[in-house]
Amino acid sequence: MANSGSGETVTERIVRVLETFDADRTVQTASEIGRRANLPSSTAHRMVAELVQCGLLERDEEHRVRLGMRLWELALRGSHALRLRQAALPYMERVQARVREHTQLAVLENDETLFVERLSHPQAGANITRIAGRLPLHASSSGLVLLAHAPRELQDRVLAGPLGAVSPETVTDPVRLRQVLAAVRRDGIVVAPGTVESVSTGVAVPVREGRGRVVAALSVVLPRETPTRPVVDELRAAAAGISTALGARRP
Amino acid sequence: MANSGSGETVTERIVRVLETFDADRTVQTASEIGRRANLPSSTAHRMVAELVQCGLLERDEEHRVRLGMRLWELALRGSHALRLRQAALPYMERVQARVREHTQLAVLENDETLFVERLSHPQAGANITRIAGRLPLHASSSGLVLLAHAPRELQDRVLAGPLGAVSPETVTDPVRLRQVLAAVRRDGIVVAPGTVESVSTGVAVPVREGRGRVVAALSVVLPRETPTRPVVDELRAAAAGISTALGARRP
Repeated sequence: MANSGSGETVTERIVRVLETFDADRTVQTASEIGRRANLPSSTAHRMVAELVQCGLLERDEEHRVRLGMRLWELALRGSHALRLRQAALPYMERVQARVREHTQLAVLENDETLFVERLSHPQAGANITRIAGRLPLHASSSGLVLLAHAPRELQDRVLAGPLGAVSPETVTDPVRLRQVLAAVRRDGIVVAPGTVESVSTGVAVPVREGRGRVVAALSVVLPRETPTRPVVDELRAAAAGISTALGARRP
Repeated sequence: MANSGSGETVTERIVRVLETFDADRTVQTASEIGRRANLPSSTAHRMVAELVQCGLLERDEEHRVRLGMRLWELALRGSHALRLRQAALPYMERVQARVREHTQLAVLENDETLFVERLSHPQAGANITRIAGRLPLHASSSGLVLLAHAPRELQDRVLAGPLGAVSPETVTDPVRLRQVLAAVRRDGIVVAPGTVESVSTGVAVPVREGRGRVVAALSVVLPRETPTRPVVDELRAAAAGISTALGARRP
């Protein structure tokens, strides 16, 4: 497709512009976008004008720029993430109502854990994840579930790569991680104390679609001192319910 | 920005490709996308390859194309819609738990009602709205709330335009609609029986941000025979809670 003149496609440049927005930076000027996307100022202003024209970006009252509702709509209305999330939400609400801690749904995306839904109780403990936020696969309980059921080639790639520590207790030794992954496949559950934050424990189970393939991880983040046993049955029942709902919704 | 050679920008073409996906069409071939987006086959295949390369689209096991998790992530992680939705969700859950019918959050987007969240009870009645779905402003209870508090110029444009009937009871007379909008502003609530579907009644209230501006409509869809009175207090309390939450979250 039409090239921008720098060897980069227009699509790649659009992605770079959209990437400058995040949870801590929802509003920017066109100049700020250009600086953060490493684009010449005139290019950034032209691209922003064009993206505003299409509704992918919007201007606020002060002429600053934010992500457009049209982008949100296009990303969601035909999205399989939305179908997964809608199938899961009633079961997540039940878990959240009983456990009263953060309840999360995550998928594997580009060798990382991507959180697609999160329900939080006002009195729940610490938790650094966000909707549309990411964590390395080896660090969180959700990621360990997803990695344990990922294709062998992806597992090898992740375990060979740099395995950063998110907290002092993150398991970063590939040999020990392989043992953890085998245990996840055997037990159908992960209990990961302190691997993301030392004050909390992640508990995660796999969510399977009709043919048994693991499509997501359902997890709860508990304060470290909370017993995990009562949560396990809740999570398993919820995961089974989501699988049934996903099966029933198949066209 | 780089032009496609047909007077259309690349950005516009990308939007046209993304627009071919919806809730009933989450997976397509590149050829189907080309046909639906009215693009030459070779162009469609090239664009799809490029969008897959960037993660905005993905291929499934059968080489068919669906919306990418990366698109979902880019659209949501820096999104004010997500902030609104996260502020509203705990209050929507409370309404939904008590009323046990569809509970929805909608915003004004490009002269239409765009639904950004919907919670449904398994036993709830009929409801045609979807997340990321749209309805004309004059037809639904949510739309009437949003239209009543929209700028005068937008109201005039909508009331002058064609006012289609979504159901036989949709109010399409501009004079009567102006009276309805004045009543909405006066009463702070809309009760709209049968305007979307003859079997149900929409009840909606405005959601205001810190400075009093209406940023969303919170609504419940009830079976036509259900009394609306008990719902009104629930909705008002929830809208007040969301406003407070939005105020507290302002940077």
